[in-house]
Amino acid sequence: MKRKPVAISVVGVHNSGKTTLIEKLIPILKARGLRVGTIKHTCHEGFEIDVAGKDTSRHRSAGSEAVAISSRTKTVFVREFKSELTLVKLLELYESQDLVLVEGFKKSSLPKVEVFRKELGKNLVAAEDPDLLAVYSEDAVKTSVPVFSSARIDELAEFIEREFFGTK
Amino acid sequence: MKRKPVAISVVGVHNSGKTTLIEKLIPILKARGLRVGTIKHTCHEGFEIDVAGKDTSRHRSAGSEAVAISSRTKTVFVREFKSELTLVKLLELYESQDLVLVEGFKKSSLPKVEVFRKELGKNLVAAEDPDLLAVYSEDAVKTSVPVFSSARIDELAEFIEREFFGTK
Repeated sequence: MKRKPVAISVVGVHNSGKTTLIEKLIPILKARGLRVGTIKHTCHEGFEIDVAGKDTSRHRSAGSEAVAISSRTKTVFVREFKSELTLVKLLELYESQDLVLVEGFKKSSLPKVEVFRKELGKNLVAAEDPDLLAVYSEDAVKTSVPVFSSARIDELAEFIEREFFGTK
Repeated sequence: MKRKPVAISVVGVHNSGKTTLIEKLIPILKARGLRVGTIKHTCHEGFEIDVAGKDTSRHRSAGSEAVAISSRTKTVFVREFKSELTLVKLLELYESQDLVLVEGFKKSSLPKVEVFRKELGKNLVAAEDPDLLAVYSEDAVKTSVPVFSSARIDELAEFIEREFFGTK
């Protein structure tokens, strides 16, 4: 087993369904006993986050870089960095997770699953990428890696687990 | 110098002004070169957090326990726990900070600053607490620890820094 966390990048052209795949994979992988985290890379720089505890928002506005709100049944910790972090630095934040699904970072050397929709009229973005592990598509795709359709998403989860965590 | 992070609890009765003190202290302490984080303990269990990146919210709803959104100029990392964390566990999340201002946790053995307003008609909540370090109040307060008014908040920050980080 590799060092935790394993990170897999979900790549594909705009609108290919990357978020949808991640959304579907998380509960399946969790049901298989893996602790799963996610990273989203965005070009939008204006995103904001709201911690709906009023006082916590005041802490953040005053300049607190790390804020937690804790109750008897739930704790949320928010850490803010005024810069882009390298993927390596980002992954250090996930040491309590087994697996991190990364949306974007298609130029990284992470193992990749590409989401492909023929109707978008583009080629596979990771066709030549030696780190391409599998393709997720409803279409017939010419590739040397396994292709999983949405009907076989459980098999994709199993494939990921076997590849990185061995068989249980 | 003690092990990072130093944690100080800000205590006081409801409405005494704990959040306001924390809000005022953060920029002063940051200007003195300290990296400051905060923790808020709440009895409200229904609080929600919104990460305004739409896709990131979808990751969280699908069950991702740790979510980051990263852009060229900003990264926000959100970690969620479905339970109350002990203060020790919470503070482990703050290893990159020098100082954590904790709102609440008045029964802990953290060093404490009490915010006091005579008009609320209550006594000091930490009067007998051996960990009471200072009082922040506009009123005359009978106590053996130093009392700082809002006009002397810089001195309170200096006092905290000297007490825990020595003189520079």
